[in-house]
Formats: sequence, structure tokens, C-alpha cells
Amino acid sequence: MEDSQVYYFGPGMSKNTLVSVERVGGKGAGLIQMTQLGLPVPPGFTITTDVCRYYYQHEQTFPKALTEAVCENLARLEQVFDAKLGDVRKPLLVSVRSGAARSMPGMMDTILNLGLNDETVEGLSQRSNNARFAYDSYRRFIQMFGDVVMGIPARAFEEILSEFKKEEAVLSDGELREERLRELVVAYKTLIQKVKKMPFPQDPREQLWQAICAVFESWMSARAIAYRKINHLDDKAGTAVTIQAMVFGNLGQDCGTGVAFTRHPSTGENQLFGEYLLNAQGEDVVAGIRTPLPIHGNEQSLQKKFPTVYQELLSTAHILEMHNRDMQDIEFTIQNRKLWMLQTRRGKRSAQAAIQIAMDMVAEQKISKQEALMRVEVSHLDQLLHPMIDPQAKKEVIGKGLAASPGAASGRIYFSPDIAEEKAKLGEKVILVRMETSPEDIHGMHVSQGILTACGGQTSHAAVVARGMGKCCVVGCSELHIDYKHETAMIRDHKLKAGEMITLNGSTGEIYLGSVPTVEAKLDDRFEHFMKWIDEVKTMGVRANADTPEDARIARKYGAEGIGLCRTEHMFFDLQRIDAMREMILSDHEKARRHALEKLLPMQRQDFIEIFKAMDGFAVTIRLLDPPLHEFLPHTQKDLVELSKKIDISLTRLKRKARSLDEFNPMLGFRGCRLGIAYPEIYEMQVRAIVEAALRVKREGVQVFPEIMIPIIGDAKELKMLRAQCERVCSQILIEEKETLSYKIGTMIELPRAALTADDIAQEADFFSFGTNDLTQTTLGISRDDANFFLPKYVEAGIYPADPFVTLDKEGVGKLVQTAVRLGRKTKPQLKIGICGEHGGDAASVDFFAQSQLDYVSCSPYRVPLARLAAAQAALRYKA
Amino acid sequence: MEDSQVYYFGPGMSKNTLVSVERVGGKGAGLIQMTQLGLPVPPGFTITTDVCRYYYQHEQTFPKALTEAVCENLARLEQVFDAKLGDVRKPLLVSVRSGAARSMPGMMDTILNLGLNDETVEGLSQRSNNARFAYDSYRRFIQMFGDVVMGIPARAFEEILSEFKKEEAVLSDGELREERLRELVVAYKTLIQKVKKMPFPQDPREQLWQAICAVFESWMSARAIAYRKINHLDDKAGTAVTIQAMVFGNLGQDCGTGVAFTRHPSTGENQLFGEYLLNAQGEDVVAGIRTPLPIHGNEQSLQKKFPTVYQELLSTAHILEMHNRDMQDIEFTIQNRKLWMLQTRRGKRSAQAAIQIAMDMVAEQKISKQEALMRVEVSHLDQLLHPMIDPQAKKEVIGKGLAASPGAASGRIYFSPDIAEEKAKLGEKVILVRMETSPEDIHGMHVSQGILTACGGQTSHAAVVARGMGKCCVVGCSELHIDYKHETAMIRDHKLKAGEMITLNGSTGEIYLGSVPTVEAKLDDRFEHFMKWIDEVKTMGVRANADTPEDARIARKYGAEGIGLCRTEHMFFDLQRIDAMREMILSDHEKARRHALEKLLPMQRQDFIEIFKAMDGFAVTIRLLDPPLHEFLPHTQKDLVELSKKIDISLTRLKRKARSLDEFNPMLGFRGCRLGIAYPEIYEMQVRAIVEAALRVKREGVQVFPEIMIPIIGDAKELKMLRAQCERVCSQILIEEKETLSYKIGTMIELPRAALTADDIAQEADFFSFGTNDLTQTTLGISRDDANFFLPKYVEAGIYPADPFVTLDKEGVGKLVQTAVRLGRKTKPQLKIGICGEHGGDAASVDFFAQSQLDYVSCSPYRVPLARLAAAQAALRYKA
Repeated sequence: MEDSQVYYFGPGMSKNTLVSVERVGGKGAGLIQMTQLGLPVPPGFTITTDVCRYYYQHEQTFPKALTEAVCENLARLEQVFDAKLGDVRKPLLVSVRSGAARSMPGMMDTILNLGLNDETVEGLSQRSNNARFAYDSYRRFIQMFGDVVMGIPARAFEEILSEFKKEEAVLSDGELREERLRELVVAYKTLIQKVKKMPFPQDPREQLWQAICAVFESWMSARAIAYRKINHLDDKAGTAVTIQAMVFGNLGQDCGTGVAFTRHPSTGENQLFGEYLLNAQGEDVVAGIRTPLPIHGNEQSLQKKFPTVYQELLSTAHILEMHNRDMQDIEFTIQNRKLWMLQTRRGKRSAQAAIQIAMDMVAEQKISKQEALMRVEVSHLDQLLHPMIDPQAKKEVIGKGLAASPGAASGRIYFSPDIAEEKAKLGEKVILVRMETSPEDIHGMHVSQGILTACGGQTSHAAVVARGMGKCCVVGCSELHIDYKHETAMIRDHKLKAGEMITLNGSTGEIYLGSVPTVEAKLDDRFEHFMKWIDEVKTMGVRANADTPEDARIARKYGAEGIGLCRTEHMFFDLQRIDAMREMILSDHEKARRHALEKLLPMQRQDFIEIFKAMDGFAVTIRLLDPPLHEFLPHTQKDLVELSKKIDISLTRLKRKARSLDEFNPMLGFRGCRLGIAYPEIYEMQVRAIVEAALRVKREGVQVFPEIMIPIIGDAKELKMLRAQCERVCSQILIEEKETLSYKIGTMIELPRAALTADDIAQEADFFSFGTNDLTQTTLGISRDDANFFLPKYVEAGIYPADPFVTLDKEGVGKLVQTAVRLGRKTKPQLKIGICGEHGGDAASVDFFAQSQLDYVSCSPYRVPLARLAAAQAALRYKA
Repeated sequence: MEDSQVYYFGPGMSKNTLVSVERVGGKGAGLIQMTQLGLPVPPGFTITTDVCRYYYQHEQTFPKALTEAVCENLARLEQVFDAKLGDVRKPLLVSVRSGAARSMPGMMDTILNLGLNDETVEGLSQRSNNARFAYDSYRRFIQMFGDVVMGIPARAFEEILSEFKKEEAVLSDGELREERLRELVVAYKTLIQKVKKMPFPQDPREQLWQAICAVFESWMSARAIAYRKINHLDDKAGTAVTIQAMVFGNLGQDCGTGVAFTRHPSTGENQLFGEYLLNAQGEDVVAGIRTPLPIHGNEQSLQKKFPTVYQELLSTAHILEMHNRDMQDIEFTIQNRKLWMLQTRRGKRSAQAAIQIAMDMVAEQKISKQEALMRVEVSHLDQLLHPMIDPQAKKEVIGKGLAASPGAASGRIYFSPDIAEEKAKLGEKVILVRMETSPEDIHGMHVSQGILTACGGQTSHAAVVARGMGKCCVVGCSELHIDYKHETAMIRDHKLKAGEMITLNGSTGEIYLGSVPTVEAKLDDRFEHFMKWIDEVKTMGVRANADTPEDARIARKYGAEGIGLCRTEHMFFDLQRIDAMREMILSDHEKARRHALEKLLPMQRQDFIEIFKAMDGFAVTIRLLDPPLHEFLPHTQKDLVELSKKIDISLTRLKRKARSLDEFNPMLGFRGCRLGIAYPEIYEMQVRAIVEAALRVKREGVQVFPEIMIPIIGDAKELKMLRAQCERVCSQILIEEKETLSYKIGTMIELPRAALTADDIAQEADFFSFGTNDLTQTTLGISRDDANFFLPKYVEAGIYPADPFVTLDKEGVGKLVQTAVRLGRKTKPQLKIGICGEHGGDAASVDFFAQSQLDYVSCSPYRVPLARLAAAQAALRYKA
């Protein structure tokens, strides 16, 4: 504790004192800054967060020097203000306020009007010539002190106050007469004596120290701890305490108190925006008992009522913006037409406002383009891109799940993808409701407005696919019970039948009865302009995960620079194709498999032709078949019987085959390149489709850059074998067709062993792409499909700082990513490395990938703008 | 190619020339050594393996200098032998033999009698005064050369030879008269001319160069490549070629040829042991046409027939043993009562012989104790410990699976563990035959002599448990089809009914019809003595994986120094316990769970009491509950109905609960410490049982060292939480009982993330124990239960050098092991680190663990001696 423990602000303070917000908290820093700028701030002093940390490290005691420092600063305050704490004639009143470095709104305590006692209240009365004001202040103080410091529930005081108002037959506190307020003070003091067996402290110094303690104690209140846990704030940071001379907005009709934003926080419009109350103290605005008046706009506005104060406020706002180079959220009090500033801080704003303000400030030359990019939160872009529930709309919440894919969707519920598809064809808006979804439900998901599931987490099939589709989705609603047989569902005590209308809020996870109106997201020119700035700055590429030509077109629209992951297996679930796929799987001989694959070849080729066209000029990374074969087989008796008839295989044989393919842990089973090695004909067909498609579009003038990606590689030898096989097919076609084609063959790094042996694997690979979904599953030993049992609790308990399937686990998976990058580039310094897991669309993860020197991230088309911004911010952060 | 490409051996060679076996091959090295020792060796010279490598690196051409070097050495040979290659009067004949550094018996080619042509054969005839011998040699040469060098199938020559014998009405080649042999030579040459459209080469130099080429070519023959793949030999090593003057064992009745071991290769007895043939050439012994005679023992023996030669052979054997300090396998030829040595190499031997010879040689002061330890192969001990199929017995092989747990077992087959148990109680010897086994089958496995399954690999449940039990087991017999309903099975075309007798060979995977006699393994004093030597040397501890008091007793018998893994869950499968366990699982509330757990507490405590007693003086590492809860629930409708009645839960609720616990990838699911965190009461009960048991036995004077091990830790915070919880329970009991107890709390390292964050985890752990089974599954992304689809092919294709569930994958998993050791000891330099996966019983893995500075390995009780030897060998290897 070498630095000063207490910082004074007020007349005579140095303009050069620099104190970090970490030490004096956000509130203290704002007050010090405003004082230094010569703005009207009631003088005061701030006890640093160091003292709070000391307090908790030393069994709730203060450092020795603190008493003296507080006394000295108090003396200075008294001198400046020409008043004395506890002085009967000229009593100084102070506020004692909490203020941590990171804002924790409403989480910690504040005490106003400290310094009043049975004697000073009289002095205040005489000095203000307003006895009612003095006793109103006194009763407010006792109430606050009793609650915050002495631990008597606020309710107890409220009950007495209500009693008084009832007796007087008045509605508001303000209507109580002075005599009654005097009696109220007595009643409050009696309450305290009764409950605490001790009197309300009359010594203002004792009041002060108890209040300081109480503020420190509130740092460790249950709700403050919970808030910090949720917001990933450090429990050790501590709070500062600011003791400030009171100014009064409740001295009469030429007084008031208010809050304002220097620009509009929803639209971003460059105009002071706020509200104030006449004849009121700060807490009245928050309490919301009286309707506040606007800062400008009507006859009651501050602009009209106090034009001078208004002008001063305007210029103050201007000064603060100039100085802080950002939109500010300010608090002020007017005492007898004099403006006092009580707080300034960075103002929170909507997505739209964030962009508007950032771009305006660039135009105003307040900030640089780079700063503007850092000002917009990545999650803001996400908000902008999805339609939202109209916040004004009335709605009945019937349940809540996990907010898996943002946006809003209304539709009639159906429990079967087939029926959903059928109804959608008739023009109905539908919502697919399932226990969980699987690749076989894709067609039903595709036609739905939104998806609701009872099981699964943020990375369940439903969540991943819905985000990929940019569709609203709520998953893991454990209150949801579905009776497929009777086509009904229960949520809490609501019984829902098929065809009933509900609305999902994918941004909050809420489920509403009926159709709730939504507000469309619109991407204006400003947005496009902003995105251009992003691309000027970012160094890492952003691609999209896109499986269809439609996906590819959307990805282009959102600025994707290629496809980082095209999953070929989704192409096989189409009704016309799945049978050929199944025939292939059920064949016992290579010849029969080849026969079935020949049916798939033209379809797959056509897919690639369209995707290549949509991605003209950009690379398209195509992953060869990855999932275990049993995923393609039907599972119900009915479907099995049907398939048996259709492809003419006995039901017994069909079942036996299906059973033989069943796996205990399919995630770690017979999939990816393991299939490619066992059945070379599958990958051969796929490579043929890719190369033939590429040659076809090339002839049409399309610039095509196919990248063949081989999944689940664990050892360089696997890749060597498959690479040779792919190259053989490619060469054969190129020779046959007398053509040339530039293509790449690379691998996913999605197993720990691949990361650990990346130097060897790089020998065989033209590129790496991290499959962080599987890499997370294997590194953490957590199946994302089964994680719902425990992972939410783990995140809640802080074992993992965030869902590792949403934000990359840097400590574990991140180490493997960096190991693989280091080893891979040791072998090939120019090795192209990307990432195509879900994490490619998460801001914190994108930041990490940029730091890890990746060449690109790939994410779902709808998250491309978000990833672009995150990449730009990372580029600015690490450009040193 | 700076070193000499050719090494001469014979009169006048330097006694100091040192040539590595890598360069001159095993055969060349033996001949050079014997020559240097002054033993009677026909002179010759060896072309190094460098030349072979050059040959393959330079499009099958020789280095320039080779021609000259061969000429020079040939000239020296001719001078020494007073004969000339191709000389009509004094023709030199040579053999051209392959010889790689690592023995590849029978895989490459050899040519004898080279140098003969239509003219030299006459010279040989005159010089030997034996025309029949000369023409016999010539026809042998043409036949061998035609086959090996010219690629004419040996069959073609054999057919002509048969024709001749038929015409003469003789049975053996030796009976053909000289005239007929002359005609045979003509017939052979005609055959060659006809097939190859060129004459048999008459120029001996051309013969020589063609033969050298042929030997090099045989290095890359399909069978040689296959052999090297199976035996993990390097394709790049190449073979040497030895050209040696011929001596003849087929010159008459004072000639012969033979092979011998300097000690008995089966028993280890210190006596020359071998066989010889009169009047024969080397290949006749191998061909096995005539019955060889013993070296000593009867009237026909070498000892009796050629006492001088025998004495010389005895002293030669002695010299070679003295020099090589190991039992030798030698080849010799007797030409006119003169002994010629043709080969010496390390002799292969049985397990028993290996120990006997090693110990005898220590007694004879030939080798040190340390060398003796290195001489016994670890796998030998394994052979010694299991009863074996009598190799003499007649047996009908009806099928073959994977040899999962060595030994032999005969019994009546049953398809249900319950029936197996029932029959065993009646005194029947039974073999459990299942599609696969699960923990619910344990009781049936326990009473069986052996286990046979249709599915699963070397690390399937059946294989692992059987090895743990020291029981013979054959798994993954894909030819086996079971019809549970009718209690029959098909293997190939054998239909087996319940109750039929079969025999399993757990060392080969073979399945025999009926009861095949076995030979008991016996551990004699010699074995015990040898094990004592081991313990003097080894520095790494060896513990056992033991779940029951019986296991613990066996482990002690085999020298385990504690238990490294006691799996508590196996204790719950007992019939009396499983219901309480199920009740606990099916409870919806903590209170109900605690109630059920209270029933389990005394049983679990009793288990620990007995295990602690059996391990008096040693540490016992107890792993808290690990498997997912659904493993404890029944799965068939019948069992579900029964359970529903027994514990009074509606069938619907029971089924719903069972379904809700089902997992997609249970291996990566809700298990291990994740259960402990979700249901603290489970681990609390287990810790209570451990501590109470420890205190109980401590009072009885037992030295008890419990180590509590927490599974599936992925992050230090999990361990921190659970450690605190365990310590709370411990302290509570110790305070209640006014006792002290020294215990440890540690964790398994079985997830990549745990290895990567081992520095943090070490903060909370008293010890680490690698769970290499799960670590292998997650690092490689391979579920061992599902690996059968592809892993065998992977090992065959050389993608993994060995089954990674048998021998630790050093490149991948090994890196994580070493990372965790480094990080863990960075935090706690004295951190105790062990390993308790299946790999603890594999010699190559144990070697790696010793190298990685682990404190101990833990393996199944029956593999303890094996691990002790492997640990001792590693200690010797890395003591530098």
C-alpha cells in the first residue's frame, strides 16, 4: 500500500493527477475527471480499491494510515464547502457511494445525507430555511442507514411510512407535512432501538466509518458475487468508496435531478437524450414513483424550464464526449438552478446505436476508423442480423429453454418433420418441436420458422443446424414433454396440440403462446459501409460453413471469402439420394457398393457445380464423408420394413447389418477417414464428383479452387494413403479430359493425436483446418450430445468459464491448437491453417485464432459479419 | 559408400577387423567371427547391406567399385582354396547366401554349388573321383539356379525328376545312377531353353553376378515384405550376400551335415543338442525327407560315429558360447571326416529354457545377473504363468478368434451367465459363450474356465476382465453365431448346443472340439530366485489392478507392491448389491439416494477391510465410482419388469428414467467425477467406507495406506471441489472416532485436457495415475469397443505399429504422458506418478513408462511378474 489510499477531488486539486480506474473505480474516475475539466462537481474524495482488497486480506480491518487520510481529506472538504461534519450550525452532509472498476449496476450499496443527527438536522433546517426538507432528508438517511448499515429490512421502514401516509390520507411521501416527518424520525429511531437493541448512531464520524464498512461489505454480498460470476468479473478486484459533499435536488421547485445520454442510446442520434425530476433526490428517479420529464421536447422539458442549466448541460456533455471520445451516460442534480455533475460513464447502447455513434464520431474526427471498429461489440452484429420479438408486444411466457439461435419465430407446432414439411407446402408457417433432432429431420427443419427441442445444449444437432440455417432455435427446454403418439406436448401446465401457434425467442430462450409480432432486422448502407472498414483492417480470412448452393449464396452476401467447410454427407439425406446411399452401405461387396455409388455420382457432381458457381473466385473446402454409416440407416421397425421392400433386401439381413454397424461410442467409431480407408470407393466417387464438377464450371469461365479435406486423421500415414488415392483419381480424370486443375488436399485437425503429430501430418497436407467441435469433445472427454447432464452445472460452478462448445477452451484445446500450428509450420512455414468448427463464429474464439496466427476462420453464413468484425478487432489488438 | 563394400574371411584375415552385424548381416557376422576365432570355416567374402541399399536407391544397379572388389576377393579365395571359378581342372564351387541383420528365416534365397557347368562338372568329377557326386551337384545347382535366378517354378524340375525316378523305379534322388543324372542335367537344360528361350548360363562369372542380383531381389519379394511388416522390421535395412567356398557333406559315408544348439532349447539343459544327416547337403536337413540322427545318445549318433568330429564340435560350441556369451544355434558340414562350420547365431528358446540358461550362465560366470535379466524376454514370463494346451495332444480346430488372454481352458459351453453359474455350482467346468460381455455378466465369467465372444477386440470387456482374472479368453470370433433363444451356436459349419464340451487356446485364439489336455504352468524355486534378481535391479514399482480380496491375494503372490487400481464399481454388480445401487440411481431426491447408499455402505466397507488386510503394508489406490449410471440398470423388458416389482417403481417411470440416462457416447458422457459433482452423496459414501475400513484394520494392527483416486478429471477445479468434499468426510470421521490416518487424494490423468493442464491439477493432487485406456481412446479418437471395424486393418497396414490399446502409442499418447509428468513435477517435484491402464502389463509400454520417470506401473495380477521383469530391464537400459 505505497500509493495514496485516498484521492481528493474539488477546488485546488492538481489537474495532472492520473489515477487508474482500477484504483478509484468507475465513479471515482468520472468525478476526478470532471473536476479536472473544471465542471461543477461537489467536492469529495475516493478511498481506493486497494483498501478494499486490504480489508478482505486482513480479516475485515483497515490499513493504519487510512484513518488519518480520511480525516485529512474530510477536513479539506469541510474547508472548501465551509461546513463541518457534525457541526450544528453549518453541518456538512455527504454521500457514501460504492464504485468498482467494472460497472455492477445496483449490486452494491450507497448512503445519502450522511452527517445528519438530532442536532445537525436543526442546523440544516435553519441554513436551508426549509425545515420540511431537513426532516425529509433526515428520515431518508435513517431509513437508508438502517437498511444498508444496520441490516434492518427496508420493508420495516416502509411499513411505518405507509402507516403515516394512511393516517394523513396522502399518497406520496412529498405530501407529508414537517410535523409528521419529525414524528416519522422518532418512529424510525424507535424501530432501530427495538430491533438492534442500540440507538441510531448520533456521531457523524461513527456514521461515516460504519458506512464505509458497509460499502466494502456489500462487495461480498451474495448478489454481488453472483453478478460477478455471471459476468466473469474478478472477485479480488474490490470496490472503491467515494465520500462526496451532498447537493440537494429536493430543496424546492428550482431544484431537480436527472440522467442523460450524450447521444440517443437506441438510435445513436447525435442529440442529448434524458430525463429529470423536479424537487427530487437521486433515488427518486430510480424508484420510478413519479414520471420523469424529458430533457428537451415539450414545455416541461429542462430545455424550457431551465434554459441556462440546459445550455450548461449541453456544453458539459460536449466537453465530456470530447474528452472521453465516446457517448456518455451522465447524472446531475440541480440545486437552486445550479447544475452539479454527479457521474459520467460510458453509455450502454443498442447495436444500431453502436454503429451509428462509432461512424458519426469518425465523421466528427473524434475517433479513428480503427477505434470505431473496436467500439462495436461483436455480439451487436449478431443482434442486427436476426429479426427480433417486438419489445412492445404483449406476450405470455409459457416456458423457457436455452437460447440456441437468435431471432424470433412464430408458427404452428408439429412434432414430425414429415408433417411439418407437408404443412409448410400448404403455406403454413410451422415450428418443429422434437425431443431432439437428427440429420433425418433436416427437411423438416428446413421448412420451419423455428425449432424447439426438449433435449440438447448449445451445440446439439438442432442448435448447430439451426444456427447454420440462420433459423431461430430454442433447445434443451426440460419443461417440455412430448407425446409423439398423441401429437401433444406439455410445457409447465400448458397442453399444446399439433397445429397450435407459438412463438420462440431465440435470443432469450423464451416460448410464448400464440403469435407475437416481430421487428425485422434491416441491413442499411451504413452497415455495409461499416463492414467495408472491417475488411480494410482485418488480416485473417473469414469463410463460411456451407453445404448447399443456397448456403453459399447467403455466405457471399454476408461477405464470406470462400467456403471453409462443405459437409458432403448432408447432401445424402435428400429423399432421392438416401436410398442409393443405403444401398451402398448395405452392400457386402465392393462391386455392389460401386454400383450404388455410381447413382450418387451425378447428384453429388451437380451439387458441387452449383456451389462452385456460387463461390466463383473463392476457395471451396469440401470435406469427404465423415459420419458413421449407421447414421444413414433407418431405425424404426416401420422404416426398416419399407426400406427392405424398396431395395429388396430381407428384413432379417437388413436388421442384422444395421445392428452390426451400431456403435457404443459412434463419435469415436468407424467414421471419417476410417471409412475412406476401409471403402476406398466412397472417397473415390466423391473426389471424382469434385474434379468433374470443377472442370465443368472451369470451362464455363468460373474461377474454381477446390480443396479436398479429409476428416478424423490421427496419423500421417492415414493421410498419406488417402492423399495418394485422391491424387490417383484426380490425375486419371485430368488425363482423360486433357485438362489442368489447381486443387489442394488437406486435413482436419480434430483429434488430439493429430495436433500432437502435426509435424508429420503437415508432410502430407496442403492445409490444416481445425475441427474444434470434435477436438473439444476428445480433449475434454465430453460428448456434446450428452453434456447436458452436467455441462450447464459446470459452467455455473465456474469449472469452465464458458460453454467450451461455444467459446474455445484456451487452456486445454487452445494448447493443442497452438501446438499443431507450431509443429505444422515447422514442417511447412507457409502451411495454410484455418478452423471450421462452431467456434469460428464466436468472438472470443476468433480473437484466439487470430492470436494463434491462423489464416482464416469459417463459420455459419449468418455469423460471417460477426466473425469479420471479431477478426478486425483482433488484427487491431495484435498488430503490434 | 566410403567403407569397404566387401569383407573377406578366411586364412590371412585380420583378427581385429570389426564389422557391424548391420553391415554384413547375421550370417556374415557369424562366419567372420568364427574365422577370427580360428574355427574351421570355408573361406569366403560378404557383400555388405550398404550395397543392397545402393542397389534399390539406384534403379537396381551396383556401385561401380563393386565389380573390382568382388574380383579381388574371389581371386583371394581361389588362391587360398587352390581352385578357380570356372577352371576345368580345379573348379572352385561357391554358395551364394542371403543374410540380413535381423533373422528372416526362409524368407530369402540361397544358391549352392555355383560354378558348375558342362566342363567344370568333369573337373569336379575327376578331382573328387566321384562322378555321381559331381553330376548330383550339377543337377542340384541347375535346379536351384533355374528356380531362384531364372524364375522357373521348382515344380517343373521336380516333375522331370519324378519322371526319372518312376522310370528307374527308385524312391529317393540318391538312388539315381550317374548315367541317369547326366541325362537329368540335359533334361533340365532343355527345360530352361524351352521356357526362357535362352540356354542355362555356362559362364560361372555370369552365374555369380546373376545369383548376387537374385539374392538382392529376394529382399523385396512379396513374402519377405510381408514378413518384415508382421515383425516390424525395416524395409530399408537390406540384406548382405555371402559368397563362400563350397564344402560337401554329400561326398560319401564319411560326410554329413547337421544343426545343433549349444544347450537344450526347450529345457535349457547345458548339453549340446542337435541332429545330423549322413552323406547329405544342407538343404536335405531342411527338406525333411530323411530322418536325421541325434548328435549324441545312440549308436548312430555323431558322438559314436565320428567321435573326433564330435569332440571338435563340443569344443567349438564351447568357444562360441564363451565368445558370444549366449546359447548358439550352429550349422556344420562334415567333409571326409573334417568339420566345417557354416553358421552360428543366437538360439531361440522356450520360456523355461530362457530362465534356466540365463541363470546357469550367471553361475558359470559367463554373464552378470544384469545380463541374465536382459536375456529373458518379457513375453516368456507370460507363457510360464498360464496353463498351456498340451502340444502333443490331438485336436480338432473348429474356429479361431483373437487370443485375448493366454492359457487354455476346457469346459461345457453356456450362453447365459446365470446358467453358467448354476452349472458351475453343480461342479461342472463351464465356458461362457457370448456375443460380447458386459459388467452384468461378471458372475458368469467368474465361474467359467474360459470365455469366448463373437465380438470385441483385445481390449473388449471380455478380454480386459478375463486378463484381470487370469482366465483364458478368446474374443472377436467372427465365425461364431449365437442363437440365444435356442441355446445353440454355429462356428463355421459346426453346430454347438449348450452343454457341449470345447477347449479354448487363449495363446493362439484357436477353438477345439471336446476337451484337449493341458499342461500346467509351475513356478519352481528357480523362477522365484529369478524374480528376486529382478527386484534387486528394478527402480520402478509394480502394483496390481485388483478389485476383490481374492485378486489382492493373487497380486501379492505374484509380487505386487500394492494396488494401483481398485475399481469400486465392480463391487456393485454383486446380486445382493445391484438392487440397492439401482434404487439409488432411480431416486429423484438426494434423501432417497442417501437412503439407498446407506445400504451399500457396510458392504463396501467390508470389501475394503478385506482388501486392506490382504495388502497389509502396501498402498491401496481406490478409484471412486467411474462408469455412467445406466450401466447398472437392466436393459431387457423381462429384467425391467422384475426390477420394477422388486423396488416398487412403476415400469413406466423405470423405463423413462433408464431412457433419460441413455447416452450417445457414454465413454464421453456423465461419468467419473462428473457424477461425483452432481451427486456428492455417492462419493461421500465411498470415502466413508474407505476411511472407516482403514480405521478398523488399523486397530487390528494392519498397516494401511489408502489412496483415494478421482476419475475423469479434466480441470483442476473439479479436483479442488471433490478433494475438499473428501477431506470434509475424512476429517469428520477422524474427529468422531478420535483417530489419525495417513491417506492420499489424487487423480487419474485420462483425458488430454488433464495432461495439458497437469501443472494446475498437481496443485490439488497428492498423486497422478495415468488411465491410459481412456487416454488412448480420447487422444486417438478411437472407442475401443468399436475399434474392431477398422483397427485390425490399421495395424496390418502399419498405420499404427501395434494395437494402441495393447502397446502404448508413444508418438501421440506418450507425448501427453510426458507432458503431464513434466508439468506435474514442475508444480510438485516429488509428485508420485503411476499408470493403471492395461498398458501397465505390456513390456514395451512399461519400458516407456520407466523412461518417462514414472514411480510405478499397475497391471492385472497375473501380469505382475512380467511387469516386474520389464521394469528391471528398463532400469538396466536407462540407468546411465
